[in-house]
Amino acid sequence: MDRKELIGVIRKKKSYLCIGLDTDIARLPEHLPKNYKGVVEFNKAIIEATSDIAVAYKPNIAFYESLGIDGWKALDKTISFIPDHCFKIADAKRGDIGNTSKMYAKTFFETFDFDAITVAPYMGRDSVEPFLDYEGKWVIILGLTSNVGSSDFQLLNLEKGEKLYEKVLKTCAGYGDESNTMFVVGATRAEHLKSIRKIVPRHFLLIPGVGAQGGTVDKVVKYGAIKDGGLLINSSRGIIYASDGKDFADVARERADQLCSKMML
Amino acid sequence: MDRKELIGVIRKKKSYLCIGLDTDIARLPEHLPKNYKGVVEFNKAIIEATSDIAVAYKPNIAFYESLGIDGWKALDKTISFIPDHCFKIADAKRGDIGNTSKMYAKTFFETFDFDAITVAPYMGRDSVEPFLDYEGKWVIILGLTSNVGSSDFQLLNLEKGEKLYEKVLKTCAGYGDESNTMFVVGATRAEHLKSIRKIVPRHFLLIPGVGAQGGTVDKVVKYGAIKDGGLLINSSRGIIYASDGKDFADVARERADQLCSKMML
Repeated sequence: MDRKELIGVIRKKKSYLCIGLDTDIARLPEHLPKNYKGVVEFNKAIIEATSDIAVAYKPNIAFYESLGIDGWKALDKTISFIPDHCFKIADAKRGDIGNTSKMYAKTFFETFDFDAITVAPYMGRDSVEPFLDYEGKWVIILGLTSNVGSSDFQLLNLEKGEKLYEKVLKTCAGYGDESNTMFVVGATRAEHLKSIRKIVPRHFLLIPGVGAQGGTVDKVVKYGAIKDGGLLINSSRGIIYASDGKDFADVARERADQLCSKMML
Repeated sequence: MDRKELIGVIRKKKSYLCIGLDTDIARLPEHLPKNYKGVVEFNKAIIEATSDIAVAYKPNIAFYESLGIDGWKALDKTISFIPDHCFKIADAKRGDIGNTSKMYAKTFFETFDFDAITVAPYMGRDSVEPFLDYEGKWVIILGLTSNVGSSDFQLLNLEKGEKLYEKVLKTCAGYGDESNTMFVVGATRAEHLKSIRKIVPRHFLLIPGVGAQGGTVDKVVKYGAIKDGGLLINSSRGIIYASDGKDFADVARERADQLCSKMML
Protein backbone atom coordinates (compact mmCIF):
# COMPACT_ATOMS: atom_id res chain seq x y z
CA MET A 1 0.00 0.00 0.00
CA ASP A 2 1.57 3.33 -1.00
CA ARG A 3 1.36 6.66 0.84
CA LYS A 4 -1.54 7.98 -1.23
CA GLU A 5 -3.59 4.82 -0.67
CA LEU A 6 -2.81 4.84 3.03
CA ILE A 7 -3.93 8.45 3.39
CA GLY A 8 -7.08 7.54 1.44
CA VAL A 9 -7.88 4.70 3.85
CA ILE A 10 -7.35 6.97 6.87
CA ARG A 11 -9.72 9.60 5.43
CA LYS A 12 -12.35 7.07 4.46
CA LYS A 13 -12.35 5.30 7.84
CA LYS A 14 -11.85 8.57 9.75
CA SER A 15 -9.37 6.67 11.87
CA TYR A 16 -5.66 6.29 12.61
CA LEU A 17 -6.26 3.04 14.41
CA CYS A 18 -3.72 0.23 14.25
CA ILE A 19 -4.62 -2.91 16.17
CA GLY A 20 -1.71 -4.86 17.59
CA LEU A 21 -2.15 -8.61 17.35
CA ASP A 22 0.06 -9.57 20.32
CA THR A 23 -1.84 -12.80 20.59
CA ASP A 24 -0.65 -14.84 23.58
CA ILE A 25 -2.06 -18.36 24.01
CA ALA A 26 -1.96 -17.84 27.78
CA ARG A 27 -4.43 -14.95 27.44
CA LEU A 28 -6.92 -16.46 25.00
CA PRO A 29 -10.57 -16.56 26.14
CA GLU A 30 -11.37 -19.70 28.08
CA HIS A 31 -13.46 -21.36 25.38
CA LEU A 32 -10.64 -21.28 22.79
CA PRO A 33 -7.98 -24.00 22.53
CA LYS A 34 -4.61 -22.94 23.98
CA ASN A 35 -2.65 -23.63 20.83
CA TYR A 36 -2.05 -22.10 17.39
CA LYS A 37 -5.58 -23.00 16.29
CA GLY A 38 -6.89 -20.89 19.16
CA VAL A 39 -4.64 -18.03 18.02
CA VAL A 40 -5.99 -18.30 14.48
CA GLU A 41 -9.62 -18.37 15.59
CA PHE A 42 -9.04 -15.45 17.96
CA ASN A 43 -7.30 -13.26 15.36
CA LYS A 44 -9.95 -14.06 12.74
CA ALA A 45 -12.75 -12.93 15.03
CA ILE A 46 -10.88 -9.75 16.10
CA ILE A 47 -10.14 -8.82 12.47
CA GLU A 48 -13.69 -9.49 11.29
CA ALA A 49 -15.12 -7.37 14.12
CA THR A 50 -12.85 -4.38 13.54
CA SER A 51 -11.57 -4.19 9.97
CA ASP A 52 -14.07 -1.53 8.85
CA ILE A 53 -12.61 0.95 11.36
CA ALA A 54 -9.02 -0.24 11.73
CA VAL A 55 -6.55 1.27 9.27
CA ALA A 56 -3.80 -1.20 10.11
CA TYR A 57 -3.03 -4.47 11.89
CA LYS A 58 0.28 -5.18 13.52
CA PRO A 59 1.04 -8.81 14.40
CA ASN A 60 3.80 -8.84 17.00
CA ILE A 61 6.09 -11.48 15.53
CA ALA A 62 7.57 -12.55 18.91
CA PHE A 63 4.23 -14.00 19.99
CA TYR A 64 4.04 -16.20 16.86
CA GLU A 65 7.72 -17.21 16.87
CA SER A 66 7.44 -18.40 20.45
CA LEU A 67 5.13 -21.19 19.27
CA GLY A 68 7.75 -22.48 16.85
CA ILE A 69 6.58 -23.86 13.50
CA ASP A 70 2.93 -23.71 14.62
CA GLY A 71 3.31 -20.02 15.29
CA TRP A 72 4.40 -19.32 11.73
CA LYS A 73 1.39 -21.25 10.49
CA ALA A 74 -0.80 -19.04 12.70
CA LEU A 75 0.90 -15.92 11.33
CA ASP A 76 0.36 -17.05 7.76
CA LYS A 77 -3.35 -17.66 8.41
CA THR A 78 -3.70 -14.36 10.26
CA ILE A 79 -2.33 -12.35 7.35
CA SER A 80 -4.81 -14.06 5.03
CA PHE A 81 -7.69 -12.69 7.14
CA ILE A 82 -6.58 -9.06 6.89
CA PRO A 83 -8.46 -7.36 4.03
CA ASP A 84 -6.59 -5.45 1.33
CA HIS A 85 -7.94 -2.12 2.56
CA CYS A 86 -5.91 -2.53 5.76
CA PHE A 87 -2.19 -1.81 6.14
CA LYS A 88 -0.19 -4.84 7.36
CA ILE A 89 2.74 -4.26 9.71
CA ALA A 90 5.19 -6.96 10.83
CA ASP A 91 6.30 -5.79 14.26
CA ALA A 92 9.60 -7.61 14.13
CA LYS A 93 12.28 -5.06 15.17
CA ARG A 94 14.78 -6.63 12.77
CA GLY A 95 18.05 -5.19 11.42
CA ASP A 96 21.47 -6.68 10.60
CA ILE A 97 24.32 -6.31 8.09
CA GLY A 98 23.20 -5.87 4.48
CA ASN A 99 23.18 -9.48 3.27
CA THR A 100 21.19 -10.48 6.36
CA SER A 101 18.69 -7.60 6.31
CA LYS A 102 18.08 -8.62 2.70
CA MET A 103 16.91 -12.01 4.01
CA TYR A 104 14.67 -10.38 6.61
CA ALA A 105 13.16 -8.21 3.86
CA LYS A 106 12.55 -11.34 1.81
CA THR A 107 10.83 -12.97 4.81
CA PHE A 108 8.36 -10.18 5.50
CA PHE A 109 7.84 -8.73 2.00
CA GLU A 110 7.92 -11.91 -0.12
CA THR A 111 7.43 -15.07 1.97
CA PHE A 112 4.82 -13.12 3.97
CA ASP A 113 3.08 -10.23 2.22
CA PHE A 114 3.40 -7.40 4.77
CA ASP A 115 3.30 -3.72 3.78
CA ALA A 116 5.79 -2.70 6.44
CA ILE A 117 8.27 -3.96 9.01
CA THR A 118 9.61 -2.37 12.18
CA VAL A 119 13.41 -2.05 12.17
CA ALA A 120 16.01 -1.18 14.86
CA PRO A 121 18.45 1.58 13.78
CA TYR A 122 21.59 0.75 15.80
CA MET A 123 23.48 -0.85 12.87
CA GLY A 124 22.93 2.11 10.53
CA ARG A 125 22.32 2.63 6.84
CA ASP A 126 23.18 -0.76 5.30
CA SER A 127 20.97 -2.51 7.86
CA VAL A 128 17.94 -0.52 6.65
CA GLU A 129 18.50 -0.12 2.90
CA PRO A 130 17.61 -3.67 1.80
CA PHE A 131 14.06 -3.06 3.04
CA LEU A 132 13.83 0.11 0.94
CA ASP A 133 14.56 -1.79 -2.27
CA TYR A 134 10.95 -2.98 -2.33
CA GLU A 135 8.60 -0.64 -4.25
CA GLY A 136 5.43 0.11 -2.28
CA LYS A 137 6.82 -1.35 0.97
CA TRP A 138 7.82 0.51 4.13
CA VAL A 139 10.33 0.43 6.96
CA ILE A 140 9.23 1.72 10.34
CA ILE A 141 12.38 2.68 12.23
CA LEU A 142 12.54 2.89 16.03
CA GLY A 143 12.83 6.55 17.01
CA LEU A 144 11.72 7.13 20.60
CA THR A 145 10.10 4.04 22.06
CA SER A 146 7.37 3.77 24.71
CA ASN A 147 9.23 1.66 27.29
CA VAL A 148 11.13 2.75 30.41
CA GLY A 149 14.44 1.52 28.96
CA SER A 150 14.20 4.03 26.11
CA SER A 151 15.90 6.51 28.48
CA ASP A 152 19.06 4.39 28.61
CA PHE A 153 20.26 5.39 25.14
CA GLN A 154 17.61 7.18 23.07
CA LEU A 155 17.53 10.26 25.32
CA LEU A 156 21.32 10.59 25.65
CA ASN A 157 22.74 13.98 24.72
CA LEU A 158 25.20 14.03 21.85
CA GLU A 159 28.14 16.45 21.78
CA LYS A 160 26.27 18.95 19.63
CA GLY A 161 23.35 19.16 22.04
CA GLU A 162 20.83 17.02 20.22
CA LYS A 163 19.53 13.78 21.65
CA LEU A 164 20.38 10.40 20.13
CA TYR A 165 16.80 9.74 18.97
CA GLU A 166 16.74 13.13 17.20
CA LYS A 167 19.93 12.22 15.36
CA VAL A 168 18.40 8.82 14.51
CA LEU A 169 15.31 10.52 13.02
CA LYS A 170 17.41 12.98 10.99
CA THR A 171 19.87 10.41 9.69
CA CYS A 172 17.36 7.66 8.93
CA ALA A 173 14.99 10.11 7.21
CA GLY A 174 17.79 10.43 4.66
CA TYR A 175 17.98 6.69 3.94
CA GLY A 176 14.62 6.82 2.16
CA ASP A 177 11.83 9.38 2.12
CA GLU A 178 8.30 9.86 3.42
CA SER A 179 6.94 7.45 0.81
CA ASN A 180 8.75 4.45 2.30
CA THR A 181 9.87 5.32 5.81
CA MET A 182 7.96 5.81 9.08
CA PHE A 183 9.19 6.16 12.66
CA VAL A 184 8.09 4.62 15.94
CA VAL A 185 7.38 7.22 18.64
CA GLY A 186 5.82 6.01 21.88
CA ALA A 187 2.60 7.67 23.06
CA THR A 188 4.17 7.76 26.51
CA ARG A 189 6.60 10.29 25.01
CA ALA A 190 3.92 12.58 23.55
CA GLU A 191 5.64 15.67 24.99
CA HIS A 192 8.40 15.14 22.43
CA LEU A 193 6.04 15.02 19.43
CA LYS A 194 6.15 18.78 18.84
CA SER A 195 9.92 18.80 18.39
CA ILE A 196 9.80 15.51 16.46
CA ARG A 197 7.44 17.11 13.94
CA LYS A 198 10.11 19.80 13.32
CA ILE A 199 12.57 17.06 12.32
CA VAL A 200 10.18 14.86 10.31
CA PRO A 201 7.24 17.13 9.35
CA ARG A 202 5.78 14.81 6.72
CA HIS A 203 6.70 11.26 7.80
CA PHE A 204 4.14 8.88 9.16
CA LEU A 205 4.63 8.00 12.82
CA LEU A 206 3.61 4.67 14.33
CA ILE A 207 2.55 5.38 17.90
CA PRO A 208 2.45 2.47 20.34
CA GLY A 209 1.88 2.85 24.07
CA VAL A 210 -1.76 3.99 24.10
CA GLY A 211 -3.83 2.02 26.62
CA ALA A 212 -1.98 -0.65 28.63
CA GLN A 213 1.24 1.39 28.56
CA GLY A 214 -0.46 4.63 29.67
CA GLY A 215 -0.29 7.07 26.72
CA THR A 216 -3.33 9.13 25.69
CA VAL A 217 -4.75 9.58 22.19
CA ASP A 218 -5.68 13.27 22.60
CA LYS A 219 -2.09 14.45 23.10
CA VAL A 220 -0.78 12.24 20.30
CA VAL A 221 -3.29 13.65 17.82
CA LYS A 222 -2.79 17.24 19.01
CA TYR A 223 1.00 17.22 18.59
CA GLY A 224 1.49 14.50 15.99
CA ALA A 225 -1.25 14.75 13.35
CA ILE A 226 -0.56 16.52 10.04
CA LYS A 227 -2.66 17.46 7.02
CA ASP A 228 -1.98 14.06 5.44
CA GLY A 229 -2.85 12.11 8.55
CA GLY A 230 0.68 11.12 9.37
CA LEU A 231 -0.23 8.83 12.25
CA LEU A 232 -0.93 5.19 12.97
CA ILE A 233 -1.95 4.89 16.61
CA ASN A 234 -1.56 1.38 17.95
CA SER A 235 -3.39 -0.34 20.74
CA SER A 236 -2.87 -4.04 21.40
CA ARG A 237 -3.77 -5.41 24.82
CA GLY A 238 -6.32 -2.64 25.54
CA ILE A 239 -8.41 -3.85 22.60
CA ILE A 240 -7.81 -7.54 22.06
CA TYR A 241 -7.94 -8.56 25.73
CA ALA A 242 -10.77 -6.22 26.74
CA SER A 243 -12.91 -9.28 27.50
CA ASP A 244 -11.86 -12.88 28.08
CA GLY A 245 -15.38 -14.20 27.51
CA LYS A 246 -17.14 -15.43 24.41
CA ASP A 247 -17.95 -11.76 23.64
CA PHE A 248 -14.24 -10.89 23.22
CA ALA A 249 -14.60 -9.76 19.61
CA ASP A 250 -17.63 -7.58 20.30
CA VAL A 251 -15.95 -5.94 23.27
CA ALA A 252 -12.78 -5.45 21.22
CA ARG A 253 -14.95 -3.69 18.65
CA GLU A 254 -16.41 -1.40 21.32
CA ARG A 255 -12.95 -0.49 22.60
CA ALA A 256 -11.70 0.15 19.08
CA ASP A 257 -14.70 2.41 18.48
CA GLN A 258 -14.04 4.32 21.69
CA LEU A 259 -10.42 4.91 20.67
CA CYS A 260 -11.43 6.03 17.17
CA SER A 261 -13.91 8.52 18.58
CA LYS A 262 -11.01 10.28 20.35
CA MET A 263 -9.10 10.68 17.11
CA MET A 264 -11.29 13.62 15.97
CA LEU A 265 -10.58 13.33 12.26
CA MET B 1 26.48 -23.90 28.81
CA ASP B 2 27.88 -21.73 31.60
CA ARG B 3 31.05 -19.62 31.58
CA LYS B 4 33.21 -22.28 33.21
CA GLU B 5 32.12 -24.93 30.72
CA LEU B 6 32.64 -22.57 27.79
CA ILE B 7 36.16 -21.74 28.93
CA GLY B 8 36.79 -25.47 29.33
CA VAL B 9 35.69 -26.17 25.75
CA ILE B 10 37.90 -23.37 24.41
CA ARG B 11 40.92 -24.75 26.26
CA LYS B 12 40.25 -28.33 25.21
CA LYS B 13 39.77 -27.50 21.53
CA LYS B 14 42.49 -24.81 21.59
CA SER B 15 40.13 -22.70 19.54
CA TYR B 16 37.86 -19.63 19.67
CA LEU B 17 36.16 -20.64 16.47
CA CYS B 18 32.48 -19.95 15.91
CA ILE B 19 31.07 -21.08 12.58
CA GLY B 20 28.23 -18.98 11.21
CA LEU B 21 25.53 -21.03 9.53
CA ASP B 22 24.26 -18.33 7.15
CA THR B 23 22.95 -21.04 4.90
CA ASP B 24 21.45 -19.58 1.72
CA ILE B 25 19.67 -21.96 -0.67
CA ALA B 26 20.98 -19.89 -3.58
CA ARG B 27 24.55 -20.73 -2.55
CA LEU B 28 24.21 -24.46 -1.85
CA PRO B 29 26.57 -26.78 -3.79
CA GLU B 30 25.11 -27.82 -7.11
CA HIS B 31 24.35 -31.41 -6.15
CA LEU B 32 22.10 -30.42 -3.21
CA PRO B 33 18.38 -29.66 -3.60
CA LYS B 34 17.61 -25.92 -3.46
CA ASN B 35 15.11 -26.18 -0.61
CA TYR B 36 15.09 -26.67 3.16
CA LYS B 37 16.15 -30.30 2.75
CA GLY B 38 19.28 -29.06 1.00
CA VAL B 39 19.88 -26.65 3.88
CA VAL B 40 19.56 -29.47 6.41
CA GLU B 41 21.90 -31.78 4.49
CA PHE B 42 24.42 -28.97 4.02
CA ASN B 43 24.43 -27.94 7.71
CA LYS B 44 24.68 -31.55 8.85
CA ALA B 45 27.78 -32.15 6.73
CA ILE B 46 29.40 -28.87 7.83
CA ILE B 47 28.77 -29.59 11.50
CA GLU B 48 30.03 -33.18 11.27
CA ALA B 49 33.21 -32.06 9.53
CA THR B 50 34.05 -29.28 12.01
CA SER B 51 32.54 -29.91 15.45
CA ASP B 52 35.75 -31.24 17.01
CA ILE B 53 37.47 -27.88 16.43
CA ALA B 54 34.55 -25.43 16.47
CA VAL B 55 33.65 -24.05 19.89
CA ALA B 56 30.35 -22.57 18.72
CA TYR B 57 27.83 -22.53 15.87
CA LYS B 58 25.79 -19.50 15.01
CA PRO B 59 22.77 -20.06 12.73
CA ASN B 60 21.81 -16.68 11.24
CA ILE B 61 18.06 -16.73 11.82
CA ALA B 62 17.23 -14.46 8.85
CA PHE B 63 18.34 -17.14 6.40
CA TYR B 64 15.95 -19.69 7.94
CA GLU B 65 13.04 -17.28 8.41
CA SER B 66 13.19 -16.31 4.75
CA LEU B 67 12.08 -19.84 3.82
CA GLY B 68 8.93 -19.52 5.94
CA ILE B 69 7.70 -22.57 7.80
CA ASP B 70 10.22 -24.81 6.01
CA GLY B 71 13.04 -22.62 7.28
CA TRP B 72 12.02 -23.18 10.90
CA LYS B 73 11.97 -26.91 10.24
CA ALA B 74 15.51 -26.62 8.88
CA LEU B 75 16.58 -24.61 11.94
CA ASP B 76 15.10 -27.20 14.29
CA LYS B 77 16.96 -30.02 12.50
CA THR B 78 20.18 -28.01 12.39
CA ILE B 79 20.19 -27.47 16.16
CA SER B 80 19.72 -31.21 16.68
CA PHE B 81 22.99 -31.87 14.80
CA ILE B 82 25.08 -29.58 17.01
CA PRO B 83 26.75 -31.66 19.74
CA ASP B 84 26.45 -30.67 23.41
CA HIS B 85 30.13 -29.73 23.60
CA CYS B 86 29.44 -26.82 21.22
CA PHE B 87 27.92 -23.46 22.20
CA LYS B 88 24.75 -22.64 20.23
CA ILE B 89 24.09 -19.01 19.28
CA ALA B 90 20.87 -17.74 17.69
CA ASP B 91 22.01 -14.77 15.63
CA ALA B 92 18.66 -13.04 15.73
CA LYS B 93 19.32 -9.40 16.75
CA ARG B 94 16.04 -9.27 18.67
CA GLY B 95 14.90 -6.76 21.32
CA ASP B 96 11.57 -5.14 22.18
CA ILE B 97 9.56 -3.98 25.21
CA GLY B 98 9.60 -6.36 28.20
CA ASN B 99 6.52 -8.48 27.49
CA THR B 100 7.71 -8.99 23.89
CA SER B 101 11.36 -9.71 24.65
CA LYS B 102 10.02 -12.32 27.05
CA MET B 103 8.41 -14.04 24.06
CA TYR B 104 11.65 -13.85 22.06
CA ALA B 105 13.48 -15.39 25.02
CA LYS B 106 10.90 -18.17 25.11
CA THR B 107 11.42 -18.76 21.38
CA PHE B 108 15.17 -19.16 21.48
CA PHE B 109 15.71 -20.60 24.99
CA GLU B 110 12.66 -22.90 25.29
CA THR B 111 11.04 -23.63 21.91
CA PHE B 112 14.57 -23.89 20.46
CA ASP B 113 17.38 -24.82 22.85
CA PHE B 114 20.01 -22.17 22.13
CA ASP B 115 22.66 -21.15 24.68
CA ALA B 116 22.69 -17.53 23.56
CA ILE B 117 20.94 -14.94 21.43
CA THR B 118 22.19 -11.72 19.85
CA VAL B 119 20.23 -8.66 20.98
CA ALA B 120 20.07 -5.01 19.79
CA PRO B 121 20.51 -2.49 22.64
CA TYR B 122 18.55 0.55 21.35
CA MET B 123 15.47 -0.04 23.55
CA GLY B 124 17.46 -0.31 26.78
CA ARG B 125 17.28 -2.31 29.99
CA ASP B 126 13.78 -3.82 29.89
CA SER B 127 14.37 -5.05 26.33
CA VAL B 128 17.35 -7.12 27.52
CA GLU B 129 16.38 -8.29 31.02
CA PRO B 130 13.87 -11.01 30.04
CA PHE B 131 16.72 -12.90 28.36
CA LEU B 132 18.77 -12.72 31.58
CA ASP B 133 16.06 -14.49 33.58
CA TYR B 134 17.22 -17.81 32.15
CA GLU B 135 19.89 -19.54 34.26
CA GLY B 136 22.82 -20.73 32.14
CA LYS B 137 21.73 -18.75 29.07
CA TRP B 138 23.39 -15.70 27.55
CA VAL B 139 22.61 -12.46 25.76
CA ILE B 140 25.10 -11.16 23.24
CA ILE B 141 24.49 -7.42 22.91
CA LEU B 142 25.53 -5.42 19.86
CA GLY B 143 28.43 -3.17 20.81
CA LEU B 144 30.44 -2.09 17.79
CA THR B 145 29.38 -3.95 14.67
CA SER B 146 31.43 -4.93 11.63
CA ASN B 147 29.39 -3.17 8.92
CA VAL B 148 29.92 0.24 7.28
CA GLY B 149 26.68 1.59 8.77
CA SER B 150 28.03 1.11 12.29
CA SER B 151 29.55 4.60 11.92
CA ASP B 152 26.12 6.20 11.63
CA PHE B 153 25.30 5.92 15.33
CA GLN B 154 27.69 3.65 17.24
CA LEU B 155 30.68 5.96 16.77
CA LEU B 156 28.82 9.19 17.62
CA ASN B 157 30.38 11.29 20.38
CA LEU B 158 28.24 11.85 23.45
CA GLU B 159 28.38 15.11 25.42
CA LYS B 160 30.86 13.71 27.94
CA GLY B 161 33.33 12.71 25.25
CA GLU B 162 32.67 8.99 25.12
CA LYS B 163 31.30 7.25 22.05
CA LEU B 164 27.82 5.77 21.95
CA TYR B 165 29.08 2.17 21.69
CA GLU B 166 31.29 2.73 24.77
CA LYS B 167 28.25 3.94 26.71
CA VAL B 168 26.31 0.90 25.44
CA LEU B 169 29.03 -1.45 26.71
CA LYS B 170 29.18 0.26 30.11
CA THR B 171 25.44 0.44 30.63
CA CYS B 172 24.59 -3.02 29.33
CA ALA B 173 27.42 -4.63 31.33
CA GLY B 174 25.38 -3.52 34.35
CA TYR B 175 22.20 -5.31 33.24
CA GLY B 176 23.78 -8.69 33.94
CA ASP B 177 27.39 -9.77 34.46
CA GLU B 178 30.14 -11.68 32.69
CA SER B 179 28.41 -14.99 33.41
CA ASN B 180 25.41 -14.17 31.19
CA THR B 181 26.34 -11.27 28.92
CA MET B 182 28.66 -10.99 25.92
CA PHE B 183 29.14 -8.20 23.38
CA VAL B 184 29.43 -8.15 19.60
CA VAL B 185 32.54 -6.31 18.37
CA GLY B 186 33.34 -6.49 14.66
CA ALA B 187 36.79 -7.73 13.63
CA THR B 188 36.84 -4.85 11.16
CA ARG B 189 37.00 -2.59 14.24
CA ALA B 190 39.95 -4.41 15.87
CA GLU B 191 41.71 -1.08 16.57
CA HIS B 192 39.03 -0.38 19.18
CA LEU B 193 39.56 -3.66 21.04
CA LYS B 194 42.24 -2.26 23.35
CA SER B 195 39.94 0.44 24.71
CA ILE B 196 36.97 -1.97 24.75
CA ARG B 197 38.93 -4.30 27.03
CA LYS B 198 39.30 -1.38 29.49
CA ILE B 199 35.50 -1.13 29.69
CA VAL B 200 34.68 -4.86 29.73
CA PRO B 201 37.89 -6.61 30.86
CA ARG B 202 36.27 -9.97 31.59
CA HIS B 203 33.27 -10.25 29.25
CA PHE B 204 33.27 -12.60 26.32
CA LEU B 205 33.26 -10.86 22.93
CA LEU B 206 31.65 -12.35 19.83
CA ILE B 207 33.75 -11.19 16.90
CA PRO B 208 32.19 -11.35 13.42
CA GLY B 209 33.77 -9.87 10.33
CA VAL B 210 36.75 -12.18 9.89
CA GLY B 211 37.10 -13.42 6.31
CA ALA B 212 34.48 -12.18 3.82
CA GLN B 213 34.18 -8.86 5.67
CA GLY B 214 37.95 -8.28 5.83
CA GLY B 215 38.96 -8.50 9.51
CA THR B 216 42.07 -10.46 10.60
CA VAL B 217 42.34 -13.01 13.39
CA ASP B 218 45.83 -11.97 14.55
CA LYS B 219 44.78 -8.47 15.61
CA VAL B 220 41.61 -9.71 17.25
CA VAL B 221 43.51 -12.22 19.38
CA LYS B 222 46.29 -9.75 20.18
CA TYR B 223 43.97 -7.04 21.50
CA GLY B 224 40.90 -9.03 22.53
CA ALA B 225 42.02 -12.29 24.18
CA ILE B 226 42.15 -12.58 27.97
CA LYS B 227 43.31 -15.22 30.44
CA ASP B 228 39.89 -16.90 30.34
CA GLY B 229 39.67 -16.93 26.56
CA GLY B 230 37.07 -14.22 26.32
CA LEU B 231 36.58 -14.53 22.55
CA LEU B 232 34.36 -16.28 20.06
CA ILE B 233 35.65 -15.48 16.59
CA ASN B 234 33.06 -16.05 13.91
CA SER B 235 33.51 -16.88 10.26
CA SER B 236 30.51 -17.73 8.09
CA ARG B 237 30.87 -17.39 4.33
CA GLY B 238 34.66 -17.85 4.39
CA ILE B 239 34.21 -21.36 5.75
CA ILE B 240 30.85 -22.73 4.63
CA TYR B 241 31.09 -21.54 1.00
CA ALA B 242 34.80 -22.26 0.53
CA SER B 243 33.87 -24.85 -2.10
CA ASP B 244 30.64 -25.29 -4.03
CA GLY B 245 31.52 -28.85 -5.07
CA LYS B 246 30.80 -32.19 -3.48
CA ASP B 247 33.90 -31.62 -1.32
CA PHE B 248 32.32 -28.58 0.40
CA ALA B 249 32.46 -30.09 3.91
CA ASP B 250 36.10 -31.18 3.57
CA VAL B 251 37.14 -27.78 2.27
CA ALA B 252 35.14 -26.08 5.04
CA ARG B 253 37.11 -28.21 7.51
CA GLU B 254 40.41 -27.12 5.95
CA ARG B 255 39.43 -23.45 6.17
CA ALA B 256 38.29 -23.86 9.76
CA ASP B 257 41.63 -25.52 10.58
CA GLN B 258 43.54 -22.66 8.94
CA LEU B 259 41.65 -20.11 11.01
CA CYS B 260 42.19 -22.06 14.23
CA SER B 261 45.92 -22.25 13.59
CA LYS B 262 46.04 -18.43 13.66
CA MET B 263 44.42 -18.31 17.07
CA MET B 264 47.66 -19.30 18.86
CA LEU B 265 46.08 -20.60 22.06
